[in-house]
Amino acid sequence: MAALAEPPLKQQKLDKNADKQEFLKVFEQLRDEIVNDELLAGQPDFAKAWVKEMMDYNVPLGKLNRGMAVLDVLRSVAGGKGTELSEEAVFRAQALGWCIEFLQAYFLVADDIMDSSITRRGQPCWYRQPKVGMVAINDGIILEACIFRILRKHFCSLPSYVHLLDLFHEVTYQTAHGQLLDTTTAPIGTVDLTRYTLDTYLRIVTYKTAYYTFYLPVACGLRLAGVTDPAAYKLAEDICVTMGQYFQIQDDYLDCYGDPVVIGKIGTDIQDNKCSWLVVQALQRASEAQKKVIEDNYGQDDKGKVQAVKAVYRELQLEAVFKQYEQESYNKLVQTIKGQDLLPQAVFTMLLKKIYKRQK
Amino acid sequence: MAALAEPPLKQQKLDKNADKQEFLKVFEQLRDEIVNDELLAGQPDFAKAWVKEMMDYNVPLGKLNRGMAVLDVLRSVAGGKGTELSEEAVFRAQALGWCIEFLQAYFLVADDIMDSSITRRGQPCWYRQPKVGMVAINDGIILEACIFRILRKHFCSLPSYVHLLDLFHEVTYQTAHGQLLDTTTAPIGTVDLTRYTLDTYLRIVTYKTAYYTFYLPVACGLRLAGVTDPAAYKLAEDICVTMGQYFQIQDDYLDCYGDPVVIGKIGTDIQDNKCSWLVVQALQRASEAQKKVIEDNYGQDDKGKVQAVKAVYRELQLEAVFKQYEQESYNKLVQTIKGQDLLPQAVFTMLLKKIYKRQK
Repeated sequence: MAALAEPPLKQQKLDKNADKQEFLKVFEQLRDEIVNDELLAGQPDFAKAWVKEMMDYNVPLGKLNRGMAVLDVLRSVAGGKGTELSEEAVFRAQALGWCIEFLQAYFLVADDIMDSSITRRGQPCWYRQPKVGMVAINDGIILEACIFRILRKHFCSLPSYVHLLDLFHEVTYQTAHGQLLDTTTAPIGTVDLTRYTLDTYLRIVTYKTAYYTFYLPVACGLRLAGVTDPAAYKLAEDICVTMGQYFQIQDDYLDCYGDPVVIGKIGTDIQDNKCSWLVVQALQRASEAQKKVIEDNYGQDDKGKVQAVKAVYRELQLEAVFKQYEQESYNKLVQTIKGQDLLPQAVFTMLLKKIYKRQK
Repeated sequence: MAALAEPPLKQQKLDKNADKQEFLKVFEQLRDEIVNDELLAGQPDFAKAWVKEMMDYNVPLGKLNRGMAVLDVLRSVAGGKGTELSEEAVFRAQALGWCIEFLQAYFLVADDIMDSSITRRGQPCWYRQPKVGMVAINDGIILEACIFRILRKHFCSLPSYVHLLDLFHEVTYQTAHGQLLDTTTAPIGTVDLTRYTLDTYLRIVTYKTAYYTFYLPVACGLRLAGVTDPAAYKLAEDICVTMGQYFQIQDDYLDCYGDPVVIGKIGTDIQDNKCSWLVVQALQRASEAQKKVIEDNYGQDDKGKVQAVKAVYRELQLEAVFKQYEQESYNKLVQTIKGQDLLPQAVFTMLLKKIYKRQK
């Protein structure tokens, strides 16, 4: 199957902006439906106002890439078949995209408490709002419940309904499991670099990020497109997991080598004792002396110590190691995508194009 | 329909004990299935050990009344039809009962963090374990996810599968909403007794307790019994909500007037500023002078102040008010149960018998 013909870059940007505006309009509709549905309709105004404010604060302010990808995937499959999407089909893809954004919001609200984070998406974390505090845990439960209210309202008559429920349950469990692996591998307050192996790293990244970031939007799009072959989902899972690993490794690279102005934050993985791809690579390559430097300086909030770790990264030429990994990983993904005919290539190339050699 | 013939009291107690042992065996099976299923099978031992310990600590140590009620309800319906339950049917009712206990564990783990509680079921709250802390939030997410793994493994081929998924989602949302009403009605650190109206009280109790404690086990049992008539579920909902309100009002009564030795704890609703049925009744009946006493003394951890509030309760004869409410509520429930022929009366009388005039 050929990739779709592409409009010029400027037009793409305009389209993307229009898509985002349309997508945000759907959020407002879904949010209002929840605030006015049979459960909340008869409740006191302060409860309704809380739910609305809580959703506005936590759900729509991210990059929305995951949520918007559902429609992209559906379009890629529909494009492959040459069929035009109905207004209803577009709305459903957007609503399903918002379910993914609600799921992410649920995890972020919880993660921020667990990590004692200060800011998220340029504003104080929800639990840091004086009136919120630990009530944020219950708000997380409500955010997750919203997924299933949206699904029930807009999808319960579709044959894919039960598959969508199973999919969201499965990915929720996988992501929670990734979080568990992450916190039990590097418990807060301990530094044990022997645990930072590539195997452990890839396992955490796969469960904590890859499934919900890549597999979930793709699988949602495929369901809406009417794909039912389990082999197609298995293939999508394999490709999406590899892509998710690549995406997180870029993230770790950018934390250390990205331009803070472009990525919008100053990386702190070294002082935060993160099981980053860079430290895993460094430990694999380091001499005993270099290992000692990492052990003595990793995971401490001290500029000199961070610089000492970065000096070892330089000696080991981790930038070049990353560039080589990036090229190899990209080539392998392209090969896999081209080497199959279960699904239109555009489903995956469209996603890959968005992240290949990204600067932020 | 006639109520079922009942065995003598001693036999009932033996049966109840045997039922609990059988029920606990099913927990062990479900737990082991989760720890060894396709997701966890290939994971590091420390992750599997964590999940197992976390489930053992949080799920099976309660009274288990909610979980065990599913089989009771199923038996009541089957008894009404005169059919014998298969081993498989009994197992499914028990597994579904454990789903309710997992849901409760999820809420309790979260509630204990939100309320800064110290102990739960006679042991430190899970989040108070030194190695756990805020990771308990993620453990809650895993506990909830377990519900859907159990449902998928043991129920996905049944026609009731999608109804069970919808049911658990609905009740989760209702319970989270009750928690929201509770925390926003009496925010921590504020005392505003004007908010403690009977309407608000009943609303909180209905959403926070009645749905998951009474309606959920009944609806689960009805689904397993093959009941599909929406009118039967609506009727069950109405009866269960009334029963749940009655149950919580008893709880509030026992917190103040129960025997600490029998109920296993010393009540602290007055010092904790709880929106209890007693304070709601007191405020409805109090003179201006008595209201002032309540306002000046409620919600403070001071023995003299607690006694001052209790003195007003005595002046207003709240014990008698409760006894009258209890009798009226019981009579009304019995009337409703007898006045319908959609469902066997035993479904409800069996539950009502367990809570009527309970001392703990």
